[in-house]
Amino acid sequence: MKTRVCEILGIAVPIIQGGMVYVSNPELAAAVSNAGGLGQLYSGKDPDILRERIQQVRQLTTKPFGVNVPLLLQEAKDLIDVAIEEKVSVIFTSAGNPAKFTEYIKERGPRVCHVIPSVRLAQKAEGSGVDLIVAEGWEAGGHNAYDDVTTMTLIPQVTDAVQLPVVAAGGIADARGVVAAFALGAEGVQMGTRFVMTQECIAHQAYKEAIIGAPDTGTVITGRAFGPTRILKNKLAETIINWERQGMSSEAILEKLGPGRSKKALLNGDMEEGSPMIGQIAGMIDDVVSVQEVFDRITSQLEPLLQKLQQKLSG
Amino acid sequence: MKTRVCEILGIAVPIIQGGMVYVSNPELAAAVSNAGGLGQLYSGKDPDILRERIQQVRQLTTKPFGVNVPLLLQEAKDLIDVAIEEKVSVIFTSAGNPAKFTEYIKERGPRVCHVIPSVRLAQKAEGSGVDLIVAEGWEAGGHNAYDDVTTMTLIPQVTDAVQLPVVAAGGIADARGVVAAFALGAEGVQMGTRFVMTQECIAHQAYKEAIIGAPDTGTVITGRAFGPTRILKNKLAETIINWERQGMSSEAILEKLGPGRSKKALLNGDMEEGSPMIGQIAGMIDDVVSVQEVFDRITSQLEPLLQKLQQKLSG
Repeated sequence: MKTRVCEILGIAVPIIQGGMVYVSNPELAAAVSNAGGLGQLYSGKDPDILRERIQQVRQLTTKPFGVNVPLLLQEAKDLIDVAIEEKVSVIFTSAGNPAKFTEYIKERGPRVCHVIPSVRLAQKAEGSGVDLIVAEGWEAGGHNAYDDVTTMTLIPQVTDAVQLPVVAAGGIADARGVVAAFALGAEGVQMGTRFVMTQECIAHQAYKEAIIGAPDTGTVITGRAFGPTRILKNKLAETIINWERQGMSSEAILEKLGPGRSKKALLNGDMEEGSPMIGQIAGMIDDVVSVQEVFDRITSQLEPLLQKLQQKLSG
Repeated sequence: MKTRVCEILGIAVPIIQGGMVYVSNPELAAAVSNAGGLGQLYSGKDPDILRERIQQVRQLTTKPFGVNVPLLLQEAKDLIDVAIEEKVSVIFTSAGNPAKFTEYIKERGPRVCHVIPSVRLAQKAEGSGVDLIVAEGWEAGGHNAYDDVTTMTLIPQVTDAVQLPVVAAGGIADARGVVAAFALGAEGVQMGTRFVMTQECIAHQAYKEAIIGAPDTGTVITGRAFGPTRILKNKLAETIINWERQGMSSEAILEKLGPGRSKKALLNGDMEEGSPMIGQIAGMIDDVVSVQEVFDRITSQLEPLLQKLQQKLSG
């Protein structure tokens, strides 16, 4: 696989590990970069901790890696400055206006990739000068946009609308997903759920086991009115959705929830009261493997899959 | 394109036109079958009208075509009997238990295809003896399942779970979508929205124009608690979603809506108070063309697309 995404990011294989809250640990990011893809840290909110984690990745790999900074964080500027100072090769900005920091970052070295859920925001990102775009469909785990635009419909429309290379995210975990994403126009993929389900990922064992047990219908969107979030169906999801159905206000729901729900699931393994954010493709994943194995499975299956495809489509 | 779907249905190209309420007119179904795909009528509720419409299709084509019968209709048995008597080659059953009529239909001639939104129901359909399966993702227009399983995640999981050939539906409107669906494991596609946007489709001009104007984020799910339905965003959608947010009961919403909302949009062109059911891929479609043109575009773009894909994936 060789696309503009590889050139821009300086990587061998256009497979990116999504920057996930709590579970994008340095060992995971480094393993992904060592396998030829692009590992990624999540910025968190504390610049000092971020700096430490970047340095940890650096000790484990000489390859490029990224940091995901949600622009809605009050600390965004400080976090970006740390990533720049530590010479991270690419900053993934999300959840905010890409015009705000793109020029600032690019002048100081790193590439900028912006994560978008719609054509309008893709065009806006392109206009702001970012180097590439991650287009994330409704299948994706964790925080999503308000509109339910899926990977299947988003990718062709975004690739039609912008000149920049587009990385597809949401619903991809194997070679079939990669080929489908490329057929739709993507030049790379970003995966989260598949990388949670690796030996290198720090995610709690109970959370990984729940993902293995999840069927295709095993995830659901909570917080539809105040911040759609895809999580595994559990007691908490049921509770939130009941509150929503009863017409409870977003403020009241958020107050009842309190902070720390995702950490409770992802790191502490509380699968009842925690918010186990995960992508819809969780239903397809039934093992925990090494990061290298994730790459090997995908790259080894591409050629046979393409041949089968050629056969089916050429009659 | 030559797959088991072609063999089972006796068609040249594994492209099926979805059986859509009101807008699967005989001229449309016949044009799709004449183009080498499989046209399809929607059963409606009146056996006599269905018989008349089947005979109309028969006058316009000698090729196979299908009838879609939602099994939740009280009239399902009578409608199925008409389709059998009129020697329709395949009956698409949906919205109900496939065990109920599959054997009855197959003993009397027609093939049976069951429409499913999940792995569990795909396995149930296979167990009941159907000949093939349509797996329909959350992107699809009109009535959907309660879970939001998208085409991207549904197709690989369903094709892993059953031996039967699987037709992918939801979010597909061009060669890119077809290749993606095949990469995910499908052996055919079903399209609704793209066929609404043909000259042969009886849908109201105002509705077609609204589809042309729709962006990627132009559709939304209404009736989440009592029957998720994908429609174009309009005044009615906003109203229903507000009622839902306020905690209004499903019964109260249904009573306020009254009957006839989809007909109002699809046939009468009332884009404010009608329920303009349509797939999410509406955002990508910006013209009304002939059915033949839909087929020509897809079949002519397959080979170049495959070559591009080979290039990108082989580096």
